[in-house]
Amino acid sequence: MSIDHGHGPFRFSLRVRFDDVDHVGIVYYPRFFHYFHLAFEELFIARLGGGAAAYRDLIDKRRVGFPCVHAEADFKHPLRFGDLVEIELTAPHVGQKSITFRYTASKVDHGGRVLAAEGRVTTAVLDMQAFRAIALPDDLRPMFESLKA
Amino acid sequence: MSIDHGHGPFRFSLRVRFDDVDHVGIVYYPRFFHYFHLAFEELFIARLGGGAAAYRDLIDKRRVGFPCVHAEADFKHPLRFGDLVEIELTAPHVGQKSITFRYTASKVDHGGRVLAAEGRVTTAVLDMQAFRAIALPDDLRPMFESLKA
Amino acid sequence: MSIDHGHGPFRFSLRVRFDDVDHVGIVYYPRFFHYFHLAFEELFIARLGGGAAAYRDLIDKRRVGFPCVHAEADFKHPLRFGDLVEIELTAPHVGQKSITFRYTASKVDHGGRVLAAEGRVTTAVLDMQAFRAIALPDDLRPMFESLKA
Amino acid sequence: MSIDHGHGPFRFSLRVRFDDVDHVGIVYYPRFFHYFHLAFEELFIARLGGGAAAYRDLIDKRRVGFPCVHAEADFKHPLRFGDLVEIELTAPHVGQKSITFRYTASKVDHGGRVLAAEGRVTTAVLDMQAFRAIALPDDLRPMFESLKA
Repeated sequence: MSIDHGHGPFRFSLRVRFDDVDHVGIVYYPRFFHYFHLAFEELFIARLGGGAAAYRDLIDKRRVGFPCVHAEADFKHPLRFGDLVEIELTAPHVGQKSITFRYTASKVDHGGRVLAAEGRVTTAVLDMQAFRAIALPDDLRPMFESLKA
Repeated sequence: MSIDHGHGPFRFSLRVRFDDVDHVGIVYYPRFFHYFHLAFEELFIARLGGGAAAYRDLIDKRRVGFPCVHAEADFKHPLRFGDLVEIELTAPHVGQKSITFRYTASKVDHGGRVLAAEGRVTTAVLDMQAFRAIALPDDLRPMFESLKA
Repeated sequence: MSIDHGHGPFRFSLRVRFDDVDHVGIVYYPRFFHYFHLAFEELFIARLGGGAAAYRDLIDKRRVGFPCVHAEADFKHPLRFGDLVEIELTAPHVGQKSITFRYTASKVDHGGRVLAAEGRVTTAVLDMQAFRAIALPDDLRPMFESLKA
Repeated sequence: MSIDHGHGPFRFSLRVRFDDVDHVGIVYYPRFFHYFHLAFEELFIARLGGGAAAYRDLIDKRRVGFPCVHAEADFKHPLRFGDLVEIELTAPHVGQKSITFRYTASKVDHGGRVLAAEGRVTTAVLDMQAFRAIALPDDLRPMFESLKA
């Protein structure tokens, strides 16, 4: 596991699981977006301050959410069962009403690293109660700014 | 697709999908419980009266839910990508505070039927707001009684 | 369910399932790419000739596959549990070594249609044994050409 | 994370993810069997000797697999998004041709532990090439025996 320094790219490692692969034995491509989301969830737990409870409160009590409005990825190299994968997350753009994240997924082993996929995800900032766009709250901005490459 | 007669066993057909299989190329066993749940969802749409909207209202407005308290299954024959599967659902026991369902999953092709799995699932009846057990509402009982073998 | 005419856009309808939604109650965005893939699988079953068995043989015996090299989607409108969704699939570009598909996901109800998401997916054509790019086999080209808008 | 001592119950911790919950906001019950399987996969990585590569070779090269023939679980307490869950795995029965595992899933927080689910899973021992039952290979027995409560 990587150690997070609280600024710079955020890294999260995961293992390709028995059911992550599809009928041809490689990771089912929609699963990459799921992997990206796992790193996104871990970002909040690691850098929001307050751990998993603070992240849950942000959504459930303050009702602030970050639904995806655009997602894309290029797939470079297949991943297989048992591979160790490092997701790296940066935020090239932190705007008033949207944030753009950049992800890479790399296979890591003794022989080094192989880039498996890279993606970009843009999220809106929403009042989840009204399901309406809002400006990014000031107290949340530093967490996203910390991801600027 | 089977035609539902509104009483007797409920049947729902599905196709084994590209991502339903695991690293050894057979349906990942937790997926069978998901298949069972798909049939359970379709039961409400087919027999509650009022279609998908009525089922959603039951959960979201009346706040009545049927969380699983026990699930079990025996796996007899592996399923593979592309197989056509028929789920059959009956309810051997419809009680005051719980209902027990019996499921079979059979592979269907020109050669006939092969039993792939059979399972039993017991659900409580809950006020989802309070997350507290309640008696099965009288107006819902006929739908479950219709499933008695 | 839509009837497929064998040419023109391919349509596939599905229901948003109990576990398709995430913690904020809308369809988890990676699931849209899964929905797209379901339509892609159904395309082969409907238009390859030979049904599900022919599609499975194409992958398992001829070892021809169509792994995704690029995927993107714009999300316009959230989908919720119980929604009926129609996926429409066309192929704006059918090349020698890659094919680009366009997908829309629309919520369909008595009030009409709402566009929930639109996406583009580019697949390579691969010899899955060698995991190496090949030219699109001539006998498969008509199926993809049939999708040209 | 728990430290594994190489004998006794095996423990694996996980976080309830954004898409693990269903339309009523609790972990979708088939997902518990997936959680159990994650612990099962980690067991091999931790105790087989040789890490993830050895586990993959066992399946892919020696073609030894452990498909589930029976699974059951009792669900005691709902899990919600963000919960930290510890899976504990023991093996009450290690036979010649089958192994029975016992799982518990407990929610862990500052207030202590709450049992969310307990389950039992029986797997066969198979030559995956022939998909035929074999006797548990002698060199694998110690790993399973190490789990005896």
